[in-house]
Amino acid sequence: MMFNDLISDASKAAPMKIYDWPTGPYPARVRIALAEKKLRSPVEFVPINLWKGEHKKVDFLSKNYSGTLPVLELEGGTFLAECTAITVYLDALEGAPILTGRTPYEKGVIHMMTKRAEIEMLDAISVYFHHATPGLGPDVELYQNQEWGLRQREKALRGMHYFDAVLRKQDFIAGDFFSMADITVIGGFIFAAIVELAIPQECEALLAWFMKMQERESVRQQLEVISNN
Amino acid sequence: MMFNDLISDASKAAPMKIYDWPTGPYPARVRIALAEKKLRSPVEFVPINLWKGEHKKVDFLSKNYSGTLPVLELEGGTFLAECTAITVYLDALEGAPILTGRTPYEKGVIHMMTKRAEIEMLDAISVYFHHATPGLGPDVELYQNQEWGLRQREKALRGMHYFDAVLRKQDFIAGDFFSMADITVIGGFIFAAIVELAIPQECEALLAWFMKMQERESVRQQLEVISNN
Repeated sequence: MMFNDLISDASKAAPMKIYDWPTGPYPARVRIALAEKKLRSPVEFVPINLWKGEHKKVDFLSKNYSGTLPVLELEGGTFLAECTAITVYLDALEGAPILTGRTPYEKGVIHMMTKRAEIEMLDAISVYFHHATPGLGPDVELYQNQEWGLRQREKALRGMHYFDAVLRKQDFIAGDFFSMADITVIGGFIFAAIVELAIPQECEALLAWFMKMQERESVRQQLEVISNN
Repeated sequence: MMFNDLISDASKAAPMKIYDWPTGPYPARVRIALAEKKLRSPVEFVPINLWKGEHKKVDFLSKNYSGTLPVLELEGGTFLAECTAITVYLDALEGAPILTGRTPYEKGVIHMMTKRAEIEMLDAISVYFHHATPGLGPDVELYQNQEWGLRQREKALRGMHYFDAVLRKQDFIAGDFFSMADITVIGGFIFAAIVELAIPQECEALLAWFMKMQERESVRQQLEVISNN
């Protein structure tokens, strides 16, 4: 990081606290967005231990009713949950690159492709993990529906083929520039690695895109954090 | 609608086509947003018959891979799916009221509460409908997971209590003004009526809020469309 970046960091945003878990696929989405926006330095990370189910305990549920990570705490004591909401917030602060679009058209397409990346890949893999594998262990996974989990695994594999088809026609998930939608599919790759769900070899455009994504400092750093933990 | 509104309508937006089903809870979200933004007049609605499963057929899937309604077709031939994405698009065109927030804080909170309204109420009721009731009938519901559906019903009931608690502290779902998040909970009420899932009587703030919502022209009109079909 260059000195100029550090200066703009300090002036840019008030202190923020992020409750997350450093290797989690959803936390990765916000960490990558923070790095892209050069907003990591005003952030203090507070670990919530997923493997101990801390995200399902009363104290954390008062921060986020849905019991998911990450959560951003703003200076006034507001808790902001949901990766898309946090990314929209960060993106609306000053600073390039814009991750959620400039024009109505860009905003619409990026939000659509982000949601689609969740439904068809990232969330589907998450449901597979929590329902059809040991997940976070018997103390945390109090209810599992294996059949539903296995259906979601198949859905995610179909989703990979869909995104491969998208990337045969354009360079990024939502068009011709990097956006929140790419970050969401990267989250899908991170979760796929955790559950050992291989990206099908025939998804050549998708695999080539992921290689290209790793050239970005924001993505490379987060993948290093994950492989070092 | 006053004459001035009609003039601003005509100048505001290029022709749009929306594929939807007039009584659907998700289509209602976009129809209410359109009415709020005074953008209904440049829109042509194309019915996709849910009860015949037209939204799961190849022709429609080429418009929206996820096979859900509504879809907005823009002049250039782009198909925009997902209610939040469509609402963000419409909101970014000129015109009041702003449904997705003005400041970073407002945008973040509105997106969070919209997503939470989906996860904890609207989407949960949808899964209940498609998995633990006859749903759209045997020709459309090719796979059902009743146990999962019933769990989602319970989740939706808990969600209603959560939103009731929110509305005991503030006038609207995402704070002190009407937004996309309110529209999403209204979608939840519409779906709850379809599946005959009563809002618990003790959710007094939630029920009072829904009464107040029906004073809005946009909401009242859409509820009339639904009850007349």
